[in-house]
Amino acid sequence: MSEQIGKVYLVGAGPGDIAYLTLRGQELLTQAEVLVYDALVDTRLLQLMPEACRQFNVGKRGGRPSSSQAKINQLLVEQCQQGKQVVRLKSGDPFIFGRASSEIQALIATNCPFEVVPGISSVLAAPLLASIPLSDPVLSKCFAVLSAHQPSELDWEGLVRIDTLVILMGGRNLDEIVRCLRRHGRSQKTPVAVIRDCGRPQQQIWIGTLASIVEQTNGVSLSPAVIVIGEVVGLRDYLQSPEF
Amino acid sequence: MSEQIGKVYLVGAGPGDIAYLTLRGQELLTQAEVLVYDALVDTRLLQLMPEACRQFNVGKRGGRPSSSQAKINQLLVEQCQQGKQVVRLKSGDPFIFGRASSEIQALIATNCPFEVVPGISSVLAAPLLASIPLSDPVLSKCFAVLSAHQPSELDWEGLVRIDTLVILMGGRNLDEIVRCLRRHGRSQKTPVAVIRDCGRPQQQIWIGTLASIVEQTNGVSLSPAVIVIGEVVGLRDYLQSPEF
Repeated sequence: MSEQIGKVYLVGAGPGDIAYLTLRGQELLTQAEVLVYDALVDTRLLQLMPEACRQFNVGKRGGRPSSSQAKINQLLVEQCQQGKQVVRLKSGDPFIFGRASSEIQALIATNCPFEVVPGISSVLAAPLLASIPLSDPVLSKCFAVLSAHQPSELDWEGLVRIDTLVILMGGRNLDEIVRCLRRHGRSQKTPVAVIRDCGRPQQQIWIGTLASIVEQTNGVSLSPAVIVIGEVVGLRDYLQSPEF
Repeated sequence: MSEQIGKVYLVGAGPGDIAYLTLRGQELLTQAEVLVYDALVDTRLLQLMPEACRQFNVGKRGGRPSSSQAKINQLLVEQCQQGKQVVRLKSGDPFIFGRASSEIQALIATNCPFEVVPGISSVLAAPLLASIPLSDPVLSKCFAVLSAHQPSELDWEGLVRIDTLVILMGGRNLDEIVRCLRRHGRSQKTPVAVIRDCGRPQQQIWIGTLASIVEQTNGVSLSPAVIVIGEVVGLRDYLQSPEF
């Protein structure tokens, strides 16, 4: 055993742009001895580390498959047991669809110290950067967040009763999501926003309704995208900054 | 009119600790000529501004009522029209129960340039800092976020069908929230976490069930508190960092 005790920091990188990294995240990155990261959206994040920092890209890249979760867990444990200060950098927030639980359980099982550092989730940032407030005293007393890579597993009867839905990983299943909502009684006039590449220069937004959005985005790759469904989408017209 | 064009930045300060401020938020604070802020949870945020920066506290303080929303709107517009770089600092995220819409509409109506900068919302950070993941492949395919200062206005029939509820401003109405969920069929064994003063040194957490939580927190002031209801609360036992 090394005398120095290592530690693993599970850090939320935010939605992409380095501007939305937290001060704590920045501090940890500038001190990291080992970095384990997914497909990153802002390469400037990689310039924060000291030169000697070892970097492991465990995300998908150029068609290469991502590392298995078991291998990522093992890497974190090994580096920590070697006494390293390890930053495990994750897009968005580690606890929002971030598969952090598996990594944490591996660290606990091996007595590796760790800390989880929140980041700005695209769940909240994508609507904000598209001028859509998720809460509104009249139009949105409640919003629900879900991942829709398997729409059939979701309770649509409950979901249609929620003012606003924020959907991750639903780009490929947009037509099925729309069908589920329509079948359970949501009006076809309900506004929908599809926000792709939130906060990045290539960000693109489609605004439509449950009746129109599938056709509007036909043939377009919607990954990564955040889908917002509900009347608050219409507030965008009243909240957008004019050009100056 | 001043020749210099002012601008208003609506900045999310995060859940309290300055560690969770974004780099963009820090940059704007260090350049601010005018700061308009609510009751702040980390006074270190006030040390980021240049000495010459004028500061307006418009939040509740020591029993003094907070400024009316109309007065806050007017202050932002006036300072912007005087050509100032104005930071409007808000707890958490400006678009999550942050009353930003009213301020933005006032700015648009008077042709004042503005930018909204996301912050880490306590909606997501409080559960994370309490080791409760809001999403889980089995236990929480969906979570809903709501403000419960008026529980009777909410659609509990829909809400009981959502795996996990994250409730803001519900501390004073905890008994009514529990009654609503029980009446609509949620099991009394459902785990509940009440997190007060998220991320601050005095953070306190109560863990119970729908059957026990009201009694457990009886007589305690639960403001500000974030309430998490659902099976994910139980994951806390498997995700907490051991003491080292």
